[in-house]
Formats: sequence, C-alpha cells, structure tokens
Amino acid sequence: MHARRALLYMPGDDRRKIEKAASLAGPGRQPQGGVDCLCMDLEDGTALNRKAEARAVIAAAMRELDFGNSERCIRINSIGSGLEHEDLAAALAARPDTIIVPKVENAAQLTAVSAQIEAYELANSLPLGGIRLLAGVETARGILNLKEIASADKRLEALIFGGEDFAASIGAVRSPEAIELLYARQALLTACAANALQAIDIVCIDFRNPEIVRAEAEFGARLGFSGKQIIHPAQIEPVQTAFTPSDEAIAYARRVAETFEAHQREGRGAYALDGKMIDLPLLKNAQKVLERARAAGKL
Amino acid sequence: MHARRALLYMPGDDRRKIEKAASLAGPGRQPQGGVDCLCMDLEDGTALNRKAEARAVIAAAMRELDFGNSERCIRINSIGSGLEHEDLAAALAARPDTIIVPKVENAAQLTAVSAQIEAYELANSLPLGGIRLLAGVETARGILNLKEIASADKRLEALIFGGEDFAASIGAVRSPEAIELLYARQALLTACAANALQAIDIVCIDFRNPEIVRAEAEFGARLGFSGKQIIHPAQIEPVQTAFTPSDEAIAYARRVAETFEAHQREGRGAYALDGKMIDLPLLKNAQKVLERARAAGKL
Amino acid sequence: MHARRALLYMPGDDRRKIEKAASLAGPGRQPQGGVDCLCMDLEDGTALNRKAEARAVIAAAMRELDFGNSERCIRINSIGSGLEHEDLAAALAARPDTIIVPKVENAAQLTAVSAQIEAYELANSLPLGGIRLLAGVETARGILNLKEIASADKRLEALIFGGEDFAASIGAVRSPEAIELLYARQALLTACAANALQAIDIVCIDFRNPEIVRAEAEFGARLGFSGKQIIHPAQIEPVQTAFTPSDEAIAYARRVAETFEAHQREGRGAYALDGKMIDLPLLKNAQKVLERARAAGKL
Repeated sequence: MHARRALLYMPGDDRRKIEKAASLAGPGRQPQGGVDCLCMDLEDGTALNRKAEARAVIAAAMRELDFGNSERCIRINSIGSGLEHEDLAAALAARPDTIIVPKVENAAQLTAVSAQIEAYELANSLPLGGIRLLAGVETARGILNLKEIASADKRLEALIFGGEDFAASIGAVRSPEAIELLYARQALLTACAANALQAIDIVCIDFRNPEIVRAEAEFGARLGFSGKQIIHPAQIEPVQTAFTPSDEAIAYARRVAETFEAHQREGRGAYALDGKMIDLPLLKNAQKVLERARAAGKL
Repeated sequence: MHARRALLYMPGDDRRKIEKAASLAGPGRQPQGGVDCLCMDLEDGTALNRKAEARAVIAAAMRELDFGNSERCIRINSIGSGLEHEDLAAALAARPDTIIVPKVENAAQLTAVSAQIEAYELANSLPLGGIRLLAGVETARGILNLKEIASADKRLEALIFGGEDFAASIGAVRSPEAIELLYARQALLTACAANALQAIDIVCIDFRNPEIVRAEAEFGARLGFSGKQIIHPAQIEPVQTAFTPSDEAIAYARRVAETFEAHQREGRGAYALDGKMIDLPLLKNAQKVLERARAAGKL
Repeated sequence: MHARRALLYMPGDDRRKIEKAASLAGPGRQPQGGVDCLCMDLEDGTALNRKAEARAVIAAAMRELDFGNSERCIRINSIGSGLEHEDLAAALAARPDTIIVPKVENAAQLTAVSAQIEAYELANSLPLGGIRLLAGVETARGILNLKEIASADKRLEALIFGGEDFAASIGAVRSPEAIELLYARQALLTACAANALQAIDIVCIDFRNPEIVRAEAEFGARLGFSGKQIIHPAQIEPVQTAFTPSDEAIAYARRVAETFEAHQREGRGAYALDGKMIDLPLLKNAQKVLERARAAGKL
C-alpha cells in the first residue's frame, strides 16, 4: 500500500499551484524527501462555476507534469451533489493513481464508484483493481455507518476524517484540543484498523505556524492515524516527520515480519519474540510501520 | 421543529410549581424571553404513590393554565415500568404538544408508543402526526441501540441524554468534567445529527450557582447539543443564552438556506458561497441555527 | 457472579509463581484479604516452545495446590493461533472455574468455545454451564463487534480490555492519560453494562509504584469498570481497594435490592426510594455494588 503521511490538496483549476506541487513531489526532490500524496481537488477547493475548467486543467496537468513518486489523487464531488458522474469520468480519463470520494455516508456509494472504475478499467484494458479508492468520512451519517463503509470495497485503502465538515454536520464548534471530534476520530481509527485501512487525520487550518501543525500531527500519530491532510507545502515536513516511524520501531517491525513469515511456513500461527507473543494483529501493526518507513525513504 | 434550548421539568403532582412555570412560559413574558419547553413529569419527579394524583393535576393544569408559546411536554414512565399505559392514556387526554418517553432502549418501544398516539389522533380526529415524541436515552442498552432508536419513528424530534441515569447504568461515578459520559454523549450527538434530531444534554444538578450551569451549557453547545434539561427556573437564562446562536451565525445560516433553495430550483446539488462549497449537510446545519434563532425571538 | 476486582496473571509454565499466587489466594489469608481471581496463562505469558510444559504445570498445580476462594482461571491462546484446541482440552481437564479467551473478535469464536465446554461438561457429568467464560477484547475488530460479542453466550460473565494489544492493533502509542484508549474503553463499558457483564480494565505495567496503579485503578472504577488485570502481587491491595464499594454505597444498594424484590412481588415495576424512582437499571447497579462488596468480605 502506498504510504500517505501527508496528503496535499490543490485546487483543481489552479495550474500554477499544481505545478508548484509537482516540483515538491517524489522522494529525493526535497531535502526532506517530497510529499507522499498530491490531491487535485474538484470538490471544496474548486468553485462551482469552475468545475468544467478544473476537469480540463487536471487532465492537462496529468499529461504534462512529472509528479515523481507522489501518489496522484483526484477528489471528485460527493455522491448526490449532481457533479459526481462528470467528475469521475474526467478523473478516470486523466489516469490517476487514486480517486477520493468525499462525504461518504454508506457502503453503496463506494461500491457504485468502484463498479464504475472497474468498467473503465475493463473498457481500457487496464489492470483490474489498479485504481485505488480513498473515502472521506466527515458527516454524522458516515460515522454512524463506519463499519459497513470500512469494509465496502477491496479498492478502498484509507478513510479520511474531515474535522471541519464533521463539526458542521453535528453542530459542534471546533477547538484546538478537538474534544468535540474525539469520538468520531477514534471510531474511524477503530474501523480502519479492523479492516487494514490507513486512517488520515484532520486538516490543520493554521498553516502559518509549523509548530501548531507539528504538535497536531504528533498527537494524531499517537492516536493511531497514519497520515494527515494538508493544505500548504509548509506543512509537508512537520507532518511527514510526525508520521515517520523511529529507527527502533522499524528494526522491531522488520524482525516481526521476517520471523512471522518463517513461522507461518512451519504452520504455526503464533510464536514468541523477546518474550512477547506475536500473532496476526501484531504482524499487521508491523506491516503498517514498515509501509510508513518505506514512504520516508528509510527502507 | 420547535426549538428546545431549555427543557424545564416540573413534578407532575405539584400544581404550585406548574403554575410558577406557566408564569415563566412563552417568549416576551420574561425579560430574557420565557422558557422553550415545559415538561410535567410523571416519572422520576413524581413519587409512586402520587402517580394517579399527578395525572389528575396535569389534566387540570393543561385545561386551566396558559403556557404561552412554551412547548407543553408530558413525561410518562418508562416502557416496562408497568405505569406507561395509564400514563400515556392520561397524557394524551390532556392534549400535550409532546410526549417524552424516558429510558428508551430499542426502536420497538418508540414505534409502539407512536402507534398508540396515532390511534388516539385517529379516534379524536386530530391531525395525524401532530403530537411529537422525544426519547430519553440514558441506559447502556439505549446507547448500544442508538442507531435504530434515532431512526425509529417520524414523530421523533429529539433524543435526551440522561447523565445521572447513564452513570448509574454503567456503574460510573459522575464528575464535573464528565469524562465518564463523553463516549455516550458523543455517540448520541452523532446519531441525532445523522437523523436530523435535536440533542438535549444532561441536567446540571447544582442549580444554585448560575455560572456552573452556564459553563456546562456552553460546553454542551460546543459539543453540538441543541439544548439542555433543567430543574430550576434560575437555569433558564444561562442555558437559553448558551444555546442561542450569535448574530453572525444567524446571518450566515440565512444566506445558506436562501441560496441553497435557489440552486435547488436550478437542479444543482452543490454550489459555492464565500469560496466554500455548500451541500446538504451544511444546509441542515444552517437550518438548525435558524431554528435556534427563532426560539430566541431573534428571527 | 464471582467478583473480579483484581485478576492476577501468572505464567502457565512457572510452578514457583503459581505456588506464590496460591499462597495469596482466598479471603482471609492476607491482611488485605486475598486476590479475587488467579489466571494461569497459556497465551502471552508462556513462550511458544513452553506451551506443552505449561499445560502440564497447570494440570499439576490445579491438582495439588489450594487456591482458597480465589477464582481459578486459565487463559488459552486466541482462536486462530493454532494452539487453542490443545489449550482448551488441557484447560478443561484441569477443571478450572473459568476459561479466558483472549483477542476475541466476533461472537462465533465464543459460541464455538462454549459449545466445546458444554460437550466436556456433558461427557464428564459436570453441571451444565458451571464453567464460566471471560473474553479478552483487545483488537480493533473486537471493539467493532462488541455488541455481538457481549451478547454471544450465557456462559460469558466479563469482558477484559487489553490496552497494550489494542494500542498495537490501531497503531496508537500508549500514554499515562490513555486518551488513545478512551473510545474503546467506554465502548466496552457500555456493551458490558447493557448485557450485565463485568468490565475488567487494562494492566498497569509499572508495578513498582503502588501509587500509579492505585490512581489508575481509581480512575477505572470511576469510569465504571468492576476490576482490573494485574501482573504482580504488589498490585492486589491498591486495585482491590479501588474497586471495593464504600459502606454508604453498600447500605443503599441493599435497600434497593430488598425493596425492589418486595415491590416485584406486588406486581409493580417501579417505585420510589428516598424520593428517587427505582427501576430495573438501578437494581442492576445495586446488584453490581453488592457483588463487589461480597468479594471484599464486607457482606
């Protein structure tokens, strides 16, 4: 699975910002190593009367720019907005790595999008299942239906929690401590972990102060998130650092993964490592650590 | 939907307290504008050997007193208490605006009450669906079944969270910070928002200190609650103020509602306002704000 | 139901530690009154190449040692580890009071174990249902499926929340305040209370400082837990004290239980005590208090 420590949004109709983001893309381009995911946004980042323009700008950018190793995501408008069909057709034609569906409220919305992606893959002789799905969960109804959403589709690799939209959805007021979001964030983390999905945390709106976003990212990482949405290039370094595992964590995860495989070959489901029983949940945790390490160029 | 910033309980068998509450009712009667909801209580507020007396006192009070614009609610005893059938018959005969069912634990309890209300409406040629339902959720089982309870019945307009009863139900000790209630409160808020229900917060038992109830009400409002249960007239002002939207919030909500309607007529599901995408969840949020504003006499 | 304020784990293959624990068992043996539950562990506490040895050590200890009134539990390996069948057969042959199944993720895992216990009871002419079940819930999937797990089987008497394993399962980092566990702990408390199960809290790893475990136990008790897992005899006293009800709580609970029964005989479901309505949830709460009091030798 592609690592997604930072997921940077760009307005879909802004060629200049997309070029700037492409210049930040891919490991090795920057001292700190590029951004994991770039998202060209057809939803909130693009005004309604600019949707058609944005679809064209994205198509051209995807043809003409080099995004290096960064994941190339396109966010379409929500199911039921009336825009999603044209968005998805344009997005698929641009051959993205990943489609992001915002404000997902039930499993059927995801399986419908996935079926349309599959039809596109078949019609264009693309590898089946090659295009991935990420789902924004940012309404009360989405949180209520997390269990079915998280297990809706094989193409689904991450849930993205939208803090501002969720607060609006329940009528809450956003605070720095985000106590108003705690239940929803932890419900989402649990549903993600149960389905081996990544969990991508809220945007930090204050992008001028890197220490605020760093602290928020570190707290998100401690809660269990694997990454964070960002809205400015200055947020890349603090966020990706916060979601990068330490050398010790990586070394331990490698030993778990290697020894687990060896024991599986012997037909044993569980075994001891440093006096601690290793079983499937711990292997999955180790695999998450290794994924994050790979994205950071540490493996 | 009737706004319910403050929901004041009165013992069902105490004519003097009901008269006092009536004198506080309705916007305009008080400098601060009356109480949104009055609840004559047949449950915990009335001793068991006073239930029959309370039914008679309520019937007389409903005939004789003027409650102005305040919502006239009657709380019956919980389903399974053995008292609920006589309570409901007496309550309906008194022609209340709203029936409150406490300690609701599953959807069937609400649909059964709703069916009895419908039978009463039919038999008395009342407008079908005119009598509303509010449900108290205040046990572990109720919280476990929130999803089905919140979508149980069209008559249902709000869930009421009972903090003391819930703490007893899970064996928790109540604290001022109420960390022991956080999960249940936020689960209830989420289920309410997903079903366009109001969410009514815990009672503040310390009614002698208005600053304590004010702080608790402001925290509840920030979490997303639309109102709060109260047990003393001194709590009306701080609670209703805390749940009253600001002038700026009202102005913005009006623009959302007006522009949404206009765009709907053009067949568009989403559009931009001040550079922010407006869709259905945000419209619902705006509608909540406007409801609260209306109750405060600000619209 | 046997009270479970403290549940002390011992490595299943360590005869010396089991003997030490037996010497601490049963009320009256210690000034502070013995430990409620002893758990001989075949899972994480026993290395993989010592599993067969541990089964034999446990069998001998159960035959030869006197555990007084302490509950004698055996923890088998998780369903799917490949070890669970041999573990369960050996555990049942040792005639324990209780089987603990760790890392339970769905109801079917518990009903399968329960069916095997029933077959053993039938084959050995033991009282049906005499051997109890406790379930560890300590993975994201387990938390997601709490509702079905908590109501899975009549033999089930408690859920045990594993904080370290759950943190690993969701990729969280453990902190002293345990905010990363709050959602899961409260979800488990709610599911337990809804099904009249005991809820047993996380291990406090720092066993050298009794004040840390005491504070953590007191916080768990305030949240609603009925007990706590422990890993060292020094944790018995602070933990059991924290989960022991006060004299006032006991006196009130006795009055609730006695008066409830009397009113039930008269066919009334609810009645008043000290001006407070008593109904089924409050009776269940009172019964929990009395159970805890009995375990402490206070009744």
